[in-house]
Amino acid sequence: MQFTFTDITTLNRILRWRRDVRHFRTDPVPETTLERLRATMDCAPSVGNARPWRVIRVEDPALRAGVRAEFTRCNAEAAAAYTDEKRDDYLRLKLAGLDAAPVHLAVFTVCDPAEGHGLGRRTLPETLRQSTAMAIHTLWLATRAENLGLGMVSILDPRAIEQLFTIPEGWEFSAYLCIGYPEFTDDTPLLDRVGWQKNTATTWETR
Amino acid sequence: MQFTFTDITTLNRILRWRRDVRHFRTDPVPETTLERLRATMDCAPSVGNARPWRVIRVEDPALRAGVRAEFTRCNAEAAAAYTDEKRDDYLRLKLAGLDAAPVHLAVFTVCDPAEGHGLGRRTLPETLRQSTAMAIHTLWLATRAENLGLGMVSILDPRAIEQLFTIPEGWEFSAYLCIGYPEFTDDTPLLDRVGWQKNTATTWETR
Repeated sequence: MQFTFTDITTLNRILRWRRDVRHFRTDPVPETTLERLRATMDCAPSVGNARPWRVIRVEDPALRAGVRAEFTRCNAEAAAAYTDEKRDDYLRLKLAGLDAAPVHLAVFTVCDPAEGHGLGRRTLPETLRQSTAMAIHTLWLATRAENLGLGMVSILDPRAIEQLFTIPEGWEFSAYLCIGYPEFTDDTPLLDRVGWQKNTATTWETR
Repeated sequence: MQFTFTDITTLNRILRWRRDVRHFRTDPVPETTLERLRATMDCAPSVGNARPWRVIRVEDPALRAGVRAEFTRCNAEAAAAYTDEKRDDYLRLKLAGLDAAPVHLAVFTVCDPAEGHGLGRRTLPETLRQSTAMAIHTLWLATRAENLGLGMVSILDPRAIEQLFTIPEGWEFSAYLCIGYPEFTDDTPLLDRVGWQKNTATTWETR
């Protein structure tokens, strides 16, 4: 397989226009699209080919309400940790699209999977969580290419979410994802745009 | 920005033909290509837009030899933990391309960066490491689109690597990456191909 300059350009356009979306339209996402997205996660790299990510698609209104309440609680605590102007700035930010997004996914990591037979994670157990993060990023890019948006909600207490979903022993909460059609597209991170944190450049220091 | 079905297909080809490469040719990678790869990491998502990844490009032969020795030590320990046939299988695997790959990158995560002002990581500090994993995955895909290969070496003791590089306080080792032209391309993970761990499918359980 040989890739061309056009392929590089396409990848860069997808990477550059991927955003952490918090502003969703409520229109449903076709099931055929969701099936393509699900299958794409299989392409993510994983330590020992263990594929330790586990995904729950959340439809139950009670579970969604539980997540929403947990976000509200954690977000209020996070706001309280800032002072003065920074707190006002924080409270002006929209940090989750939980109310409008039609698709919700709770993502977990199996911390000692049989798959992979332990390969590659003996000294760095963290590689399992890295695998799940890369699977989420794979889904993120695939979602963008489908003209959908994905938002990652991290203002949640992981132990509270694990309890809410009564997950099997050995699973660990990784992320809660909202998916749907975005209200707008942008090639600039919202936190840069609103002045919370300007973009910084990646440097490669040579030694 | 609207993406087309052709864009989806291109992304899927890049995702499907990305491999954890351990078989490299020794030809150098043009500096202009490396500069494109470095810049692409800026497109990765990060919690609070903090971009907590730090990259050291490793050219010093003494540092490379130190990493090589650490890999040899950790790989021998890993092999010793298997018994009988599984140990023979393990020893037959080639798990790093450290000797041939022309480009080596050591990647770290800043665990309490000023950037982002703590946003989004109060309840889940793990989001910083997830950001670094997604930046590595961004680089991985960009590398593939350039017809290069990337291999992630995780059979290393993180504390030993941190000591070897005498990194600043607050940095944590995330991964060691080899980059170069691959000896062959494949759309199937090597560990599936050789029978160590067959591919498993991602399922989305609905609740």
